[in-house]
Amino acid sequence: MNYLKHIIILRNFLSHIAFDSVIFGFSGEKLKILIMKYHNTGLYALPGGFVDLNENLNDAVRRGLKERTGLDNIYLEQFYTFGDVARYKPEIMQTILEANGKSLEENHWMLERFISVAYYALINYDKVVPTPDTLSDSCTWYAVDELPNLMLDHREIVQRALKTLGENLDKKLVGANLLPTRFTIPTLQKVYEAILGEKLNRTAFQRKILSLGILKRHEKEYSGKAHKAPYLYSFESEAK
Amino acid sequence: MNYLKHIIILRNFLSHIAFDSVIFGFSGEKLKILIMKYHNTGLYALPGGFVDLNENLNDAVRRGLKERTGLDNIYLEQFYTFGDVARYKPEIMQTILEANGKSLEENHWMLERFISVAYYALINYDKVVPTPDTLSDSCTWYAVDELPNLMLDHREIVQRALKTLGENLDKKLVGANLLPTRFTIPTLQKVYEAILGEKLNRTAFQRKILSLGILKRHEKEYSGKAHKAPYLYSFESEAK
Repeated sequence: MNYLKHIIILRNFLSHIAFDSVIFGFSGEKLKILIMKYHNTGLYALPGGFVDLNENLNDAVRRGLKERTGLDNIYLEQFYTFGDVARYKPEIMQTILEANGKSLEENHWMLERFISVAYYALINYDKVVPTPDTLSDSCTWYAVDELPNLMLDHREIVQRALKTLGENLDKKLVGANLLPTRFTIPTLQKVYEAILGEKLNRTAFQRKILSLGILKRHEKEYSGKAHKAPYLYSFESEAK
Repeated sequence: MNYLKHIIILRNFLSHIAFDSVIFGFSGEKLKILIMKYHNTGLYALPGGFVDLNENLNDAVRRGLKERTGLDNIYLEQFYTFGDVARYKPEIMQTILEANGKSLEENHWMLERFISVAYYALINYDKVVPTPDTLSDSCTWYAVDELPNLMLDHREIVQRALKTLGENLDKKLVGANLLPTRFTIPTLQKVYEAILGEKLNRTAFQRKILSLGILKRHEKEYSGKAHKAPYLYSFESEAK
């Protein structure tokens, strides 16, 4: 081993470690995620952040989610840590710092190489108030099939989040957290289709989803046309 | 943000980032992993390492695996990044450095807080020559149900590797990489039982595993008692 490299760092955060969050919501029959736009740069990115020296990684991510969405107790899964050298592009961070009038010298640690631990979150779209941070002028929902160009490897992070979400789709909580407490089977099918990126057969979907034994059917409430309304379901144990 | 903290680091590696590998092999009807023992400390640990400044994270892990096992092209999965503050115990690293006559000043970066990106590897036990590194006097197979006390959170890392491995068990490659090219169903059942930590019903296992459609049965070769020998199988596409 050689110890050739001098690096002087002034900061409160763990150097070289970032996190990025793919925050999923479901609205207008579309699966959507929150995207930040940085001031005066045209750069779009996933919400993310850094880990305080005395903070658990998972707590840092929850802190970031709370800042962007206003929500606590979000369903959250770590899914992959991105550590390629190719994702090191200091000129992009330099552009963002300069566009915000930040000192490059004081923030030099942000120009170093980062690995990023990626998480996906599933939230009830209607409960969120998206809030930008000090470096960005918007934090906005985008449908996953209509994303702007994302900086660095953030597109790849989204793709991998979608893939993991698809693999975990039949776990109870995955669906529960994207939907209101009670929902119809056709609405649940729309969520599945949005995540999987394909149309599903209605009858086969209904048969499969009911066979999992995780849905509870509720009695229709009386109304003049109640007999035509679809049944409402909830997940067996409402862990929301 | 405050920039209160001065840290001066001299090294070739990314500070604060480590990796740990749970290297699985199967022998004597037991699932085993490789464990290092550090010189003169009584400390046992998973094989791991650090990421060079100009090295991809995944390449660093493959480099570490090659050094410990002599093997290239190992089946490898990243499964979780451990980032709790509670895993920061500089006194343990100090003990290891001192027991090896290493300068604490020169190696001060090793006394900082690390997050660890954890991987599991699946290898053919018979092909491995376990090799210790310069800080350890052994690198040895231990059955997962007979592990020594492991330092830091390494026991938790092993538990999570086992859980993930169990969840991925029906993926073709998981089994393929722990077994020789041709194997019997009872041997495959032993692998499953070792990973899941429970006995499985022989008939049910055989029915389930054959129903996956990923096994190819080979004709028995002629021998005096061939008709009593169990059939040999291999995975459909021998991707090993």
